[in-house]
Amino acid sequence: MPVFDELFSFPSSQTEPRSTDMAQAPKTAITPTRSENYPEWYQQVIKAADLAETSDVRGCMVIKPWGYAIWENIQKKLDARFKATGHENAYFPLFIPMSFLEKEAEHVEGFAKECAVVTHHRLEPDGEGGLRPAPAAQLEEPLIVRPTSETIIGATFARWVQSYRDLPILLNQWANVVRWELRTRMFLRTAEFLWQEGHTVHATSDEAMEETRQILDLYADFAENDMAMPVIKGEKTSGERFPGAVHTYSIEAMMQDRKALQAGTSHFLGQNFAKAQEIKFQDQEGQLAYAWTTSWGVSTRLVGGLIMTHSDDDGLIVPPRLAPAHVVILPMYKSDDERASVLATCQKLKTELEAERFDEEPIRVRIDDRDIRGGEKSWQWVKKGVPLRVTIGPRDVADDAVFLARRDSSEKGQGVPHREFVARAADMLREIQQHLFDRAATLRADNTTQIDNLADFEAYFTPQDAKNPEIHGGLAYCHFVESATMDQKLKDLKATVRCVPLEGDDEPGKCIFTGQPSVKRGVFAKAY
Amino acid sequence: MPVFDELFSFPSSQTEPRSTDMAQAPKTAITPTRSENYPEWYQQVIKAADLAETSDVRGCMVIKPWGYAIWENIQKKLDARFKATGHENAYFPLFIPMSFLEKEAEHVEGFAKECAVVTHHRLEPDGEGGLRPAPAAQLEEPLIVRPTSETIIGATFARWVQSYRDLPILLNQWANVVRWELRTRMFLRTAEFLWQEGHTVHATSDEAMEETRQILDLYADFAENDMAMPVIKGEKTSGERFPGAVHTYSIEAMMQDRKALQAGTSHFLGQNFAKAQEIKFQDQEGQLAYAWTTSWGVSTRLVGGLIMTHSDDDGLIVPPRLAPAHVVILPMYKSDDERASVLATCQKLKTELEAERFDEEPIRVRIDDRDIRGGEKSWQWVKKGVPLRVTIGPRDVADDAVFLARRDSSEKGQGVPHREFVARAADMLREIQQHLFDRAATLRADNTTQIDNLADFEAYFTPQDAKNPEIHGGLAYCHFVESATMDQKLKDLKATVRCVPLEGDDEPGKCIFTGQPSVKRGVFAKAY
Repeated sequence: MPVFDELFSFPSSQTEPRSTDMAQAPKTAITPTRSENYPEWYQQVIKAADLAETSDVRGCMVIKPWGYAIWENIQKKLDARFKATGHENAYFPLFIPMSFLEKEAEHVEGFAKECAVVTHHRLEPDGEGGLRPAPAAQLEEPLIVRPTSETIIGATFARWVQSYRDLPILLNQWANVVRWELRTRMFLRTAEFLWQEGHTVHATSDEAMEETRQILDLYADFAENDMAMPVIKGEKTSGERFPGAVHTYSIEAMMQDRKALQAGTSHFLGQNFAKAQEIKFQDQEGQLAYAWTTSWGVSTRLVGGLIMTHSDDDGLIVPPRLAPAHVVILPMYKSDDERASVLATCQKLKTELEAERFDEEPIRVRIDDRDIRGGEKSWQWVKKGVPLRVTIGPRDVADDAVFLARRDSSEKGQGVPHREFVARAADMLREIQQHLFDRAATLRADNTTQIDNLADFEAYFTPQDAKNPEIHGGLAYCHFVESATMDQKLKDLKATVRCVPLEGDDEPGKCIFTGQPSVKRGVFAKAY
Repeated sequence: MPVFDELFSFPSSQTEPRSTDMAQAPKTAITPTRSENYPEWYQQVIKAADLAETSDVRGCMVIKPWGYAIWENIQKKLDARFKATGHENAYFPLFIPMSFLEKEAEHVEGFAKECAVVTHHRLEPDGEGGLRPAPAAQLEEPLIVRPTSETIIGATFARWVQSYRDLPILLNQWANVVRWELRTRMFLRTAEFLWQEGHTVHATSDEAMEETRQILDLYADFAENDMAMPVIKGEKTSGERFPGAVHTYSIEAMMQDRKALQAGTSHFLGQNFAKAQEIKFQDQEGQLAYAWTTSWGVSTRLVGGLIMTHSDDDGLIVPPRLAPAHVVILPMYKSDDERASVLATCQKLKTELEAERFDEEPIRVRIDDRDIRGGEKSWQWVKKGVPLRVTIGPRDVADDAVFLARRDSSEKGQGVPHREFVARAADMLREIQQHLFDRAATLRADNTTQIDNLADFEAYFTPQDAKNPEIHGGLAYCHFVESATMDQKLKDLKATVRCVPLEGDDEPGKCIFTGQPSVKRGVFAKAY
């Protein structure tokens, strides 16, 4: 197991002099650093990158333009994958009649709890200058703001499905959902969040399972190739299953504090929802049969995962494939004469870069000519995580060069001939994308181990630093059998079983909690 | 004024034999026709094209894949325009604290009425096997599901804006909103609908007005060039203004039943919301000043406008620039041998068409090889409004030809050499786009008039056909001054003043309702 400090040994990418406004300038752009206080570092990265902020509504966040642009890029990448695999988008109601939630027994347990309940459809003056829900406008049946849409979509599918000819149905919806979470954290757990939820109906169990696994693969492909975030594909244990599902699969990623993040789930619902909602069809033999359904989703939580996978003590680092801007060009000048020639060169560079292609699209370039100090301006873009920063001043114009800094690198920026930079820019973005993935994969490998006895397991999940009670060993692959004994031990250690990985060795062993025979190891971790 | 029947004289695009399943085959794919019952025809077009359906939640619709794909194309076109004019997307909370609605007096009147009110945050078992809102989980302050977001976004802007350097703020949000409408009609008026809402903050009145008008122009450009829907840009009268606005501008279109549809609005809010929400900034002279704000939006209502502008008695017609598919290829074969060669030819054609560009993107092509009767299949695509339908059978393969039908034309389909079709396809789509616009512009011109006395005005808005009480003259340009007399007359005639057009003659005249002097004509119409 690597020593603790290595965890945060990623070098800072200092390339410009710091603001000297403060008597004691901090060594990093973000205070506190990851090793000082990881949860607070996370909040400060969000603030420094201007990604989001808390709103006037409890538990709901405002997603600011830079954060939303990352989400739009996530949407675009996923949406293209959904469509390429035959799915179509549709839109279903925000509200779910309360009685719909009562139909699937486990679903009731899981979702009919902390949710937003609409009981009235009108406001009226309260007689004291304010407003109140009009007593005469109470709804006969309360409506629930969707926490997830299996029930309302299932009721619709029941109308659409008559014959095997109507199957499969392969739909996806981009939507907002609300779960009245008691403890919220930006992007990771908010009362309202944005997500996509796929819902499909199939004639056979095999087909539904194939769909469930296809989507799991699709999520993993997106996470690794676009987010540069290595993930483990696995099946959830019965205790962690989606309420009402037969099998739940997930992708699990390791954050820089070694905690796991569930980044996407794909559920094989069997015939549970079909039976609760009467989704029946006449099969090719003319027999009436219940259909097989799936559902799957990822959410704005992915933005939280992106932040915690790649960012450093200077702020956000966005993988190039999801970056709202790939290159930011910062003009530097003093006189009006200088301004004209510098800006002309910047504009020329922008046009040239936009003619180059990265990830099958033109390179995305911004020129930041705002009237603020150059150092401060450059640091803003460091904190926003733009992959490449280019400074152009009068001397660069004269030399036909640019001053270039890579966000993922600790090296100081350097002068590069203008033409060489244009020719190399797309390749550099590819290198950065790969570098971020490799760095995260190395960190995960360095903090993953197999554990075969309870004492080691306890030590692994016991904090090694009083200042950072959250920091611990990382991921542990262990044999296990679900039991009350295990659940209690995990609760004591604040650890969880993330999944049973689909890939990897299958050698049998003994449950580290009870000694019972076990066929496969699970992945254990502290988790978000 | 043209005679009544001309209104629906667009020829049907029959090109294939009809289903003979019915003893008496109707002459059109949609029953009733436009001239028989326009409102019911509208519902049937939506059903036949599989655009949307009513849901299990009162007043909320399910937007089905074909309808949602049109909305996605609308979003894409508008979003590109917003970004090209410097706007960024963001996301604000779904919920608005009730007290926020109380702040702007007129806004209270307009929006704090029929809305969805969240009063509880938990459900619990009701003791009878069902659920109920948990009495212990009543919210201290009710939350309103946003009917529009000026108040919650304004409260956020108040935090963001400190100095003139923070301005302008140019944001847009794609979101769902809820207004508890009593009478709903699919796409045109639903309790929940999808829209975009732009919200901007400026340092000066002039800048805010420039933004308001820029967006109005942007909406009109989109409506005319992408939707092929001619619109009138104008200012709303005080009675039709957005609650809390100083000036409201709109684009107004004429549907085929001669009723007007408000298709988009842009509001100059002055300092009303800034004062209600304390959006203040320090100007360049160091003085504290209230900011100037705007808001603007279009919604899924546009899909209703698209349907009613272009569709005919055989169903939907989608303008090519917004069509989910530009070309559908229908293979026809009997034997397995035929199947192989026909499908190979279809695939080749698809690939060739996709290499051609229309509207700066590859032509969008679908091959429909479902195992259903050819006539029925072809009619499904007629009803869905795909611009070009191509049938390929063994003889076409042998002749190196395709059988081609245009959705906007009454001409029967015809054989066209394969190569010629590929070369001409993009041009044909351009022709169709233009033809749809011209046809709608002609209909509007034929049903627009100037009226200078009340008797003619009354006759113009009195139905000419007992079977179609909604059908009347069309648009009337009249001099007017807002008054109670006018309001009562309009109410009696079920007519409305749509706007005062920004373009056109400015000769003064006399109000047809009161005889008062008037500087400019308004557009009067029955309206959705």
